[in-house]
Formats: sequence, C-alpha cells, structure tokens
Amino acid sequence: MGKWSSFFSTDTKSLKSSEIRDLLKLTEGKSVISFAGGLPDPSTFPAEDISRITEDVLRSKASSALQYSATAGVAELRKELVNFSALRGITGIRDDNVFVTVGSQEALFMLFNILVDPGDHVFVERPTYLTALNVLRTRKPIFHGMEVSEKGPNVLQLEEELKKVSKEQGKPKLLYVIPTAQNPAGTTMNLDDRKRVLELATQYDLLVVEDDAYGFLVFEGESPPPLKALDKEGRVIYLGTFSKILSPGLRLGWIVADDEIIKEVELFKQNVDLHTPSLNQYIAAEALKRGIIQNNLPKIRSLYRQKRDYMLASIETHFPSQVKWSKPVGGMFVFSWLPDKIDTTKMLEDSMRRGVAYVPGSSFYYDYGGRNTMRINYSFPRKEEIERGIQILGSLIKEKLQ
Amino acid sequence: MGKWSSFFSTDTKSLKSSEIRDLLKLTEGKSVISFAGGLPDPSTFPAEDISRITEDVLRSKASSALQYSATAGVAELRKELVNFSALRGITGIRDDNVFVTVGSQEALFMLFNILVDPGDHVFVERPTYLTALNVLRTRKPIFHGMEVSEKGPNVLQLEEELKKVSKEQGKPKLLYVIPTAQNPAGTTMNLDDRKRVLELATQYDLLVVEDDAYGFLVFEGESPPPLKALDKEGRVIYLGTFSKILSPGLRLGWIVADDEIIKEVELFKQNVDLHTPSLNQYIAAEALKRGIIQNNLPKIRSLYRQKRDYMLASIETHFPSQVKWSKPVGGMFVFSWLPDKIDTTKMLEDSMRRGVAYVPGSSFYYDYGGRNTMRINYSFPRKEEIERGIQILGSLIKEKLQ
Repeated sequence: MGKWSSFFSTDTKSLKSSEIRDLLKLTEGKSVISFAGGLPDPSTFPAEDISRITEDVLRSKASSALQYSATAGVAELRKELVNFSALRGITGIRDDNVFVTVGSQEALFMLFNILVDPGDHVFVERPTYLTALNVLRTRKPIFHGMEVSEKGPNVLQLEEELKKVSKEQGKPKLLYVIPTAQNPAGTTMNLDDRKRVLELATQYDLLVVEDDAYGFLVFEGESPPPLKALDKEGRVIYLGTFSKILSPGLRLGWIVADDEIIKEVELFKQNVDLHTPSLNQYIAAEALKRGIIQNNLPKIRSLYRQKRDYMLASIETHFPSQVKWSKPVGGMFVFSWLPDKIDTTKMLEDSMRRGVAYVPGSSFYYDYGGRNTMRINYSFPRKEEIERGIQILGSLIKEKLQ
Repeated sequence: MGKWSSFFSTDTKSLKSSEIRDLLKLTEGKSVISFAGGLPDPSTFPAEDISRITEDVLRSKASSALQYSATAGVAELRKELVNFSALRGITGIRDDNVFVTVGSQEALFMLFNILVDPGDHVFVERPTYLTALNVLRTRKPIFHGMEVSEKGPNVLQLEEELKKVSKEQGKPKLLYVIPTAQNPAGTTMNLDDRKRVLELATQYDLLVVEDDAYGFLVFEGESPPPLKALDKEGRVIYLGTFSKILSPGLRLGWIVADDEIIKEVELFKQNVDLHTPSLNQYIAAEALKRGIIQNNLPKIRSLYRQKRDYMLASIETHFPSQVKWSKPVGGMFVFSWLPDKIDTTKMLEDSMRRGVAYVPGSSFYYDYGGRNTMRINYSFPRKEEIERGIQILGSLIKEKLQ
C-alpha cells in the first residue's frame, strides 16, 4: 500500500497489469528472443510513403491536419474507410456508419463500457484476445466460453451456453469474437459456422462485436467474409485496425456499426479524448487514396506466410509428439496445447532464463484456464531467431515431460 | 428510443452531448462568427518544422516511430518533458513522474475514473472547464464550488466548503482547479491564494488535479508558479498539453505526478488504448529538443495578446455598462457576466441567427448555474470578425435589456 492508494476508486482496485505488457518490459533491451509480443515486422512499414504523404498533407492542409477535428473522425478518412470496407465484403454502409478510434483497443474499451453492465451474460472464445478480456473484466459480466481447438471454434458449445442462459431466465447480451485468423489461436471460423453464429445472434437477441484485426492478413486459402458482411440486422459491430496493415505507432482503428451505436460511441469518446489525432487520420486517408495500403498487403501476407512456414517447420522438428498446435492461415500467432502436466506460466521463468519469451495461454482464458497452453508470435522475430527459439522451447518442453 | 438502446449500459445512459461540440457542429461550414470553440489560431502551427521533423524521424527511426511503444510514453519525450517542466518551475522530478496522454482530455478521463467514486466530495471552480465536468459527472460525486468572479477565484469559499464537509463527517477527496488563465473565466489565481490552496489540501488531505493548459500562454504580468512547483508532498497532479503550444491535432498531453499515481494511470491506459501514438510523441520530443516550441511561445503570446486587446476594446465599445467581463492575462477566453434577467442559453438562438456563436456559461457550472454568463473565444476568430461579432452581441444584449 502506497502513500496515495487510499485515494484510488473501487473500480480501479480490480485492475491488474497485463502480462503481455509486463513481459514486454522484461524483454526490453535484453537479448531475449521474443515470441511474446504481437508486433508487426517493421520491414512492412511504408516509412518513405508516410514521410511523403505527411509532407504533402502539411503543405496543403496544415490548418486542418494540425487543428482539432470531429469526434467521429476526419471526413476524408471515414469516406475512404467506406470504400476500403468493401474489400472485406462490407457494403451498403455510409460515412455515418464508420467511426475512427485510437487503435482498435479504444474501440473495445468504449464498446464494452457502453454495452456491458455488471452481471450481463457475455460470450467469448476460449482463448481470446487478452486486452479485450481485461476491459471486459472491469465491467464484471458473467462469462461464457466457446472453446477454440486447433481445428477452430466450437459453435455448438456457443449454442448450448446460450440455451442454458435462456433456460435459467438469463438474457444473453453480447458475443465478442475474432472469426478470422483468431488471436491467439490462429484459427479461422468456416462459412457455415459464421452463418450459424448470426442465426444464433438473431434467435437469442445478441449483439456481436467482431474483431477483424487480421482480416486483411489471411495468406492461405480463401478467407470467408466477416460476420458484418453477412449481417442484415445491424447486429454486428465490426472493428478494423491500421496497426497490422500500415503502422501500429499511428494508433488508428475503426468501427463499422449501426448509426445509433456510432452516436453513442461519439458521446463516450468526447469524454475520453475528444477525438483521434487529426494528422494521423489524414495520413491514413491519403495512404488509402493512393493505394499504398492496398498495394502493400500482398507483400505483408507473403512475408508472414514465409515466417509461419518457418515456424511450423521448426515446431515440427523440435516439439515432442504429445504437443498440439494450430496451423494458422493468417495473422501473427501459433497457439500450442502442451500436455496437461506442463504449466506454461511456471515454465516461463526457465524459458526466459534460456533466452526465449512467449505468452502463457492462461492470460487468454476468461477463467484463467488453459494453463498448459502458450501463444507464439512469428511476425516480429527474425527467421534465425524463430529456428533457435523454437529449438530452445522444444528442449525445455521435452525436459518438463521427462 | 432506437433499435439498440436497450443494450446500452446504465453508465452510458447518463451521457449527454457536450454543448460545445454540438455547437461546433452547428457552425460547421456556415458563415457564422464563432466565439464558441477553444481553437488555437492556425497561424501558430509550425507546419514546416513539423514536416521537416517527421521526415527526419521517419528516416532515422521509423522502426520505433511506427511501431507499438510503451504505455507511459516514449522515453525521449518523457525526458524532454522533465526539462520542459522546469520552465514552469517544476523541478526535482524524474522520467517516472511523467506520463504521456492523448491530449490532456485523456488525462482528465483517466484520473477522474481512477480517483473518484460515487458520493466522493469533489471541489471545482464555478465556472470550470466543461469537458472536465462532463467526465466528473459520470463518476457521480458530490460537487462543491469555489466561485470565480472577474477578480479571480474565492479561496475563502473553498475553505468554508471544506470545513462544512469535514464537520458533517464527510471526507474531502479531490480539488480540480485551473489556477492560471482559467478556462472559461480567463482569471489567474495569485501567489498567496496558491499557497493557501496547498495548505488547505494538506490540512484536509485533499488530492489536487491542476490543469495548466494555458500555463505557457500568459502574456501579461508575471505568472505565478503552478501549484505543482510549490507542492512538497506529491499531492498535486499536474496536467500539461501540446494543444495550445504546438498543435491540438497531434493530441498530446502529459501528467506530472507521484510515481504511485503514474503507475495506476499506466494500468488504466493499457485498457483504454495501449499507448499514445508513437510518431506524434517522437515529433513532439524533437520539437522540444530543437527549441521549436520554446521559440514559438513569444509569437503565440504576442498574437493572443493583440487579439485579447482587440476583443476587450470591442467589448468596451459595444457592451452596455451593466455587463461585467474578465480581463484575461493569458489563455484564449473572455468570460462575461450579464445582468440576471438575460438567459444566455435562450439568447443563443437569436445570436446564431444573427451570425455569432458563443458558449452559454451554464455549461461550465457543475450545477448548471451561471445562466447569465457566456464564454467568448478570441484566439481563433480573425480581428475583423472579433470587431463585427462583438458589435452584434452588444446590440443583442442591449435589446434584451430594454
């Protein structure tokens, strides 16, 4: 207890440090091979293009780009995002359905604050994105899980949970889901399951928050359309991000939703930060207008495909046969299920000592289950680090199994 | 009631649209003279310098400037802010005491969420900054006011309110205050009152959030040091912003506080948006390092002083003698107290119809009092607009008094 802790609000007392962020701090400036973060490969950043765009924007419209701007986003960017959404099959939307946020993290923060009350029934994948869970936890909902295995999400289980809640007179409220190149599992929901999820949402009057962070990074096979592209009722709230396709350092994400929901987010964001940085929005609008992002996508996909191949080959070689792992068709992560006797949180200290970091899977489970799982990132480490790091991890796992 | 409104959380239902923002929307694209906003004069934006800096940053460190960065802020910027704080007399702090936010609005949002529970006794100036009040209101505190007249804040009243709360077994929790070039009143607290506020804070064990948005924009007389410079206990949480001295479109603010409070803010911000945009932080760090901000300050002060002079002269000429107004020594606003029979909210429609916008003062009162007051901005409108707009307002007020 520090000098000022008695001043902290009751809401704040439940906050815990994110394991990912603490881990990143541990690896800062050290010669650790990090499979822990979710960082893009910096070679994918179009730095020169961004530099040229910034120069042009500041020459032609500095008085707007450096000034306060609208809470919902700069008009030029909202317009470009309407067009860009069509690349994911999302059509029939207008500028009013698009809202710009400080990364998709801010979208998650605002939406869960707006939509979730304590005791609400909320459905999430098990495992699912850690920082989404952290925000949801502050809202004190009742969680229900949809198990994700190396084969993908179990939509039957979602249906059973929905039935159970309804039977017990509960009202299902919200589903948070990452259908495409899921974080952390690396799996993708097939088209039939997507349709089924939407049917269930209608049947149980459920709002769906669809996190499409990796939708543009599917590098193998055909990517089914996002739920939002199949949504006829305005029931799906879609989240996109520039972090993986342009630059995370610009902190730009966006929401596509029914305009009633957009208006509510606008009211909320006035309190949070007034608006998303204007200059960054003009940069992104121009990067879309000039096709820089669109033209860069094949290069990013090809690079991540190579890195994934490299990682899967290394895992195949070095991990013992009792271990399972996902074969991601996109995104940045392989998820691995170790034999039950291994606790990956406990193993992390040994692993760090040998120079390899990863994220223990339990951080991605709303109930802190999955203690035998781990998330391994392949987008950031260099190829030689992938080979060496997986070899070290493989030896460690083999030792633990003896 | 819309299609999805039943899904909104109980917290959200209390949100109301900010009058300032709605007003700004009304004036968008119309030929209205706007005294309503709080926008800097765009001629103060060093657009060419920012362009050159961006080019340099993206050439030399794109892999950091476009990548994810630390939640508390980019190290280079925190270091520069330690030095910059010394210009306001704030010394003896380390990088750990500095935290970078998405404008100072995000600092207000996070701090009030961290520090205020429903029913807490919170002390604010009457009037005070509208969007700070909007955030505070979502926390449902018990408000207490310290009246601000054209002569400055009434610290005796603060003392009386503190006494009263203590006598009734209440625990005073937090004071939110803008001591320098106050928004909206335009007044500055003298040194003796500053010392007295700190004594009271110690005596009643009160945390102080000091909003120094206009601290670098005092253009007349000597500016007393901020409370933080006089604070020996770590009781003052200081907020700074780049919005008025570099560019609001970059959305950069900062907190200086005890490191225990900084750590709590860090946990909170991980949920809100992970971190403040990296590129923007590198730009600001470089703008400080190269002295661009410091060298630009005299020009900004001189411009705003001229505009203030112009506005005060216009008011002197056109407002009737029963009206009072502040004579700001800094900042961007004149605040005006009209005779009680005039309701400035009601008068706004007439005023807009004649082509002049302002903010009705009641928005700045926690209890929606001050219905006879108005805030008039002089930083954004051009000189000829100031003259014409004040003339129109003066005629309208005279009509209302007949």
